[in-house]
Amino acid sequence: MQDVSSLAAQAREGRPRAVARLISLVEGASPQLREVMATLAPLTGNAYVVGLTGSPGVGKSTTTSALVTAYRRQGRRVGVLAVDPSSPFSGGALLGDRVRMSEHASDPGVYIRSMATRGHLGGLAWAAPQAIRVLDAAGCDVILVETVGVGQSEVEIASQADTSVVLLAPGMGDGIQAAKAGILEIGDVYVVNKADREGADATARELNHMLGLGEARAPGDWRPPIVKTVASRAEGVDDVVQALEKHRAWMEEHGVLAERRRARAAREVETIAVTALRERIGDLHGDRRLSALAERIVSGTLDPYRAADELVAGLTEG
Amino acid sequence: MQDVSSLAAQAREGRPRAVARLISLVEGASPQLREVMATLAPLTGNAYVVGLTGSPGVGKSTTTSALVTAYRRQGRRVGVLAVDPSSPFSGGALLGDRVRMSEHASDPGVYIRSMATRGHLGGLAWAAPQAIRVLDAAGCDVILVETVGVGQSEVEIASQADTSVVLLAPGMGDGIQAAKAGILEIGDVYVVNKADREGADATARELNHMLGLGEARAPGDWRPPIVKTVASRAEGVDDVVQALEKHRAWMEEHGVLAERRRARAAREVETIAVTALRERIGDLHGDRRLSALAERIVSGTLDPYRAADELVAGLTEG
Repeated sequence: MQDVSSLAAQAREGRPRAVARLISLVEGASPQLREVMATLAPLTGNAYVVGLTGSPGVGKSTTTSALVTAYRRQGRRVGVLAVDPSSPFSGGALLGDRVRMSEHASDPGVYIRSMATRGHLGGLAWAAPQAIRVLDAAGCDVILVETVGVGQSEVEIASQADTSVVLLAPGMGDGIQAAKAGILEIGDVYVVNKADREGADATARELNHMLGLGEARAPGDWRPPIVKTVASRAEGVDDVVQALEKHRAWMEEHGVLAERRRARAAREVETIAVTALRERIGDLHGDRRLSALAERIVSGTLDPYRAADELVAGLTEG
Repeated sequence: MQDVSSLAAQAREGRPRAVARLISLVEGASPQLREVMATLAPLTGNAYVVGLTGSPGVGKSTTTSALVTAYRRQGRRVGVLAVDPSSPFSGGALLGDRVRMSEHASDPGVYIRSMATRGHLGGLAWAAPQAIRVLDAAGCDVILVETVGVGQSEVEIASQADTSVVLLAPGMGDGIQAAKAGILEIGDVYVVNKADREGADATARELNHMLGLGEARAPGDWRPPIVKTVASRAEGVDDVVQALEKHRAWMEEHGVLAERRRARAAREVETIAVTALRERIGDLHGDRRLSALAERIVSGTLDPYRAADELVAGLTEG
């Protein structure tokens, strides 16, 4: 058992090993998980969380790395969480080479962590917010959450962010793919990367059309900007940072940031509560109470709904 | 509101409309759902439930229809539940033509129902067992549960059955597909349909090998038979019925049937209980209790785990 308070203090000082250890504790549902979360709570709430999603090949890692450089130039501490919902590996084994982004590896102001959540109890909804909490408590000013692949999990991850960035690249029918995956609705900022390639303007126009950006909006509404970048040469990356800051300022002005964070926290609590209740039912199962109920259902002396009532009543006594 | 007892009595007499009405009541989570389940409980426990799974194209509907004919010849009452987890339609709209199986449409001893569960709260795990219960209470001696497609949902459905039949057809690399989908582990009886086609023996041999059927087993262990059929010509179908009866007798002799039914009932209760608890959390959400907890998390005065504790405590008081 480790001293959680001292780990938290070390993480606060920016010691990467302490951060790594804390993430491992929350990720693995260790016995110390609750202690860690309780200790970190008062230290959280300062980080600005940015989610980056997009199809494979659009340049998410390159863009993330370029954003890290830009934020570091401003003196901000940056956390990077790379989430791969389809990988059974965890702890950076798989994504390591790609996300460790050699240029930042020796920078103590950058903490990079990859996370795989396949088969994980509760999946992304459960694991990612806790890691974000650790990075927040460790004093990161900005946390970039990069997801691999496109799909429901990405939308889920994006819902963990203060600002969601959707990346596209010219050609590839990306616009349509994005629309299908439902990620078009989640973008606060859109980035057309690889803008030096043919079709970049067309992609931006198509996107502009799909998002209805040409249409009138109520005053005060957020109009998602479309930023063109060549992340591999850092072109346009400052524009992305500017768009992010603008979105953050808009959210603060309109109370949206606080509302998003409350909604995020509510979902987090709900997920933990349901998981806990499921576990309690599992315990009852061990107690043979569920078996006894099942026996009565099989014999026809009880129906499943009244049995469930008894099970729930059993929980609430526990 | 309908008189549930009278519906149950009519269903018991084999009136298809009463059966249909009862299934609609349990399927749609109507206000009368609990009353229906309580009324039916003492009438259940007699039906032998057989699950049929396999890739599209192996001839599941044809085999199901041939099995209905064979059981009807024995004078048994038969229920058929065709489940399509990928379809947004319900109530037989989509599968109707295929599963209504014209030759049985006018037979009062056969009740056929299709069910689509996509997007359904709790999905298959929730809806299928309830429909099975209605068919059981309606006096079906045998209930054939046919699933469309291959995947996790099929495995889930199979777990609702007393005996699981896995269907394959020659060629198509079916054996490997089945192995990937995890359905090879769930078969109590294997059927190689379309056995008049080239490659049927090879498929049976491959299956025999994959299942390790050549290896020694402990005395008393069930050794899944592989039956070859041409369901469209009713060839081998009596052999399938015989294999099913043999498996049923083996389960009864070894206490396996009772154990499977208890496990099934336990899962059913658990699913209903978790759904009920989720709904209660939803109610609390409406109460703004969850919002208040979220607010405290955002401000750092509470961590999500203690918040979840409070939420669960709130449930148990309710």
